[in-house]
Amino acid sequence: MDFKTEKLRGFRDFLPEDMKIRNYVRKAIEKKFKLYGFDEILTPTVEYTGIFTLKSGEEITESMFAFKDKGNRDVCLKPEQTVSTARFFIENFKNFAMPLKFYYFCPVFRYDEPQHARYREFWHLGVELIGSNTPESDAEVISLAYCGLKQLNLNFELELSNIKVIKGVLNSTNLSRGDKEKILHYIDKHNDEGINEILKRTDNGEILNKVLSFKGKRGNLNELKNIVRNCPEAIEGIEELENILNFVEMFNNDYVINFNIVRGLDYYTSNVFEIHANDMQICGGGRYDNLIGLFSDKDSKNDKNKGVPAVGFAYGFDRVIEALKAQNLIPKFENNKILITYVSEEFLPYCIKVAGELRERNITADLDIMKRKVKKAMEYANNKYRYVIVVGKKEFEEGRITLRDMESGGQKFLDVGEIEPLC
Amino acid sequence: MDFKTEKLRGFRDFLPEDMKIRNYVRKAIEKKFKLYGFDEILTPTVEYTGIFTLKSGEEITESMFAFKDKGNRDVCLKPEQTVSTARFFIENFKNFAMPLKFYYFCPVFRYDEPQHARYREFWHLGVELIGSNTPESDAEVISLAYCGLKQLNLNFELELSNIKVIKGVLNSTNLSRGDKEKILHYIDKHNDEGINEILKRTDNGEILNKVLSFKGKRGNLNELKNIVRNCPEAIEGIEELENILNFVEMFNNDYVINFNIVRGLDYYTSNVFEIHANDMQICGGGRYDNLIGLFSDKDSKNDKNKGVPAVGFAYGFDRVIEALKAQNLIPKFENNKILITYVSEEFLPYCIKVAGELRERNITADLDIMKRKVKKAMEYANNKYRYVIVVGKKEFEEGRITLRDMESGGQKFLDVGEIEPLC
Repeated sequence: MDFKTEKLRGFRDFLPEDMKIRNYVRKAIEKKFKLYGFDEILTPTVEYTGIFTLKSGEEITESMFAFKDKGNRDVCLKPEQTVSTARFFIENFKNFAMPLKFYYFCPVFRYDEPQHARYREFWHLGVELIGSNTPESDAEVISLAYCGLKQLNLNFELELSNIKVIKGVLNSTNLSRGDKEKILHYIDKHNDEGINEILKRTDNGEILNKVLSFKGKRGNLNELKNIVRNCPEAIEGIEELENILNFVEMFNNDYVINFNIVRGLDYYTSNVFEIHANDMQICGGGRYDNLIGLFSDKDSKNDKNKGVPAVGFAYGFDRVIEALKAQNLIPKFENNKILITYVSEEFLPYCIKVAGELRERNITADLDIMKRKVKKAMEYANNKYRYVIVVGKKEFEEGRITLRDMESGGQKFLDVGEIEPLC
Repeated sequence: MDFKTEKLRGFRDFLPEDMKIRNYVRKAIEKKFKLYGFDEILTPTVEYTGIFTLKSGEEITESMFAFKDKGNRDVCLKPEQTVSTARFFIENFKNFAMPLKFYYFCPVFRYDEPQHARYREFWHLGVELIGSNTPESDAEVISLAYCGLKQLNLNFELELSNIKVIKGVLNSTNLSRGDKEKILHYIDKHNDEGINEILKRTDNGEILNKVLSFKGKRGNLNELKNIVRNCPEAIEGIEELENILNFVEMFNNDYVINFNIVRGLDYYTSNVFEIHANDMQICGGGRYDNLIGLFSDKDSKNDKNKGVPAVGFAYGFDRVIEALKAQNLIPKFENNKILITYVSEEFLPYCIKVAGELRERNITADLDIMKRKVKKAMEYANNKYRYVIVVGKKEFEEGRITLRDMESGGQKFLDVGEIEPLC
């Protein structure tokens, strides 16, 4: 077997300083999720491949880590969480009172070409609100996506859209089905050349161009309605968007309407949105009213889950962290660790007792376990520990300790009980 | 493609109530890890298969989720974390001052037959202390494994061993290599019949039997030393165990020496230990001084990492939770959620404002987004929410709210600011 003793391409090791940042960001965002009434869930890392090929879109299914397990099942590492949550809902909650509000944090996997902020294992932190199709439920979810990042002081753009607008205009053209799919793909990838190439083949190119170049607020939508007046589906999309804006604007006016937001996933049905920062898409979501029905009992005509509406979003957690780093928004984490060292090994039992007392009092205490001389221990502690406790003859005999502040260089002779919890 | 719209066999969905339990246990144990000076790390879910076949033992490598990725690499879902941490150390930390103290929480994967407390995706929560071979480092790690569980009031047995004892006795017999490996496997699996079958083929069966039936404290080891006096490796093992007991006993005397603990992993070299509760093994660990060397540069004669000693353990996190449940040690989690509902849709904007104010003040507030009548909303809230806020004409006009306690049935007319943070 040919292999390297190193990590795989596109995968990452997270060092202690990385984990501190990740935990800080995760905790802040999860707190907001909870304040909005979302409860945490977790679904398996491995799922049947088939549940994702139903409706996730070609781009995702082509890049899946798919394989056969020892039972010859077609399985994969989940490429995103929304489909898995739909499956989860049907298996565990389909007879529960609505709505259900779930949040999740989990790794997802895609075999793409690794590049800046694109990895083969990355994390989705997101929410799903299942069972309500009211505009205020869309608005709550969009507001949560917005304020989850705002509290971290991040500078970003929230862009709102409704996929019925583009799809409605496309459906009113004489373009082939293949061309329509291609153009949606090009819009998602910002491939202007590809878009223009296809537009040459239709008479409605001008309308489509006007829709794509639209950027504005609610007030500007009337003009657009006039432009697409002959596309009933597009009008419906604009009106759905207007309905949620009544509520979104109660939370914030800091958004742009942009119909270039079409999302790469096939399951969205109505209002969609994205958040961008530092030239990266860091969040995506929207309404998907037909996905859960795919998991319901096909043979039952009365299965009420066929029509379960849902709306949600996921942050690209790794990209949120990239953006926070780029904007210098990661705080400096306090290091209040104490290293306990001793002049002679006979004092080691006393040091172990001191360590135990400090830990009991919620103070992080590391015992030197290298049998080092004090000087060597101090060198090791430098820049790693905020404090060093030294135990020598005097400390041992009087049952006290010497606490050295590695930043100031000052030291004090103290009772263990006098050390205040530092973290 | 043939598939089911359900989760895979051996995999689990975690519901909100499951996640509350998991987060409670994880947080408590991680806090102890931090107090002992361990820092969190994370390695990829997918690794080269080869790093595990080097030294993890046949049993694990046979049950791996292994496959070829799109780049034709032999990869697998990691079956355990220690090997991955050794790889992590060499790639990221090999020139750092020792010791390094890492902890981790991650899913691991094994294709075993699913049964009670055995799943195909399960979680390891553990620590690795890299770079020290002193007895006090073994003792610190064993003490941490012990007190991590003790704080949760769990009733369990800590069993200590040193694998050199059994291996030493086996090496002094005339048994074939195959028989020696078999007997270690049978010991690990508590297969007495298999053990006895092999013992028939050796003259030293009596000594081995005495070692296997030994149970006791440090004081009983002298007698055992006499029994194995002709097996120098076994004597060495007993003395290594005695050395760590000096320190272990400073933390607790609540242990049993049991040489049946041989561990199913090939990389252990010295002292090993297991924790059992409710007829399950819930923790395992020990010293592995030769593993990290496997990842060092084979061509460099001066590679100092060849001799990097290490000691660590992992809790079977899912089994810890099973044991806590079996012993009724999961606390009841407070539900302080508030649902905000309204008599007429004209008050919805006011309700959104109230929700925003409460969330700003760290109070979990759910807005009713189903356009339900108050009575229906109350029915939905029953047993799900501790409080319901009702907004009618009077509340709206006076800018106040009515707060109903769903447990007592009592209600109060209040300013929003009068609601105390409940969680």
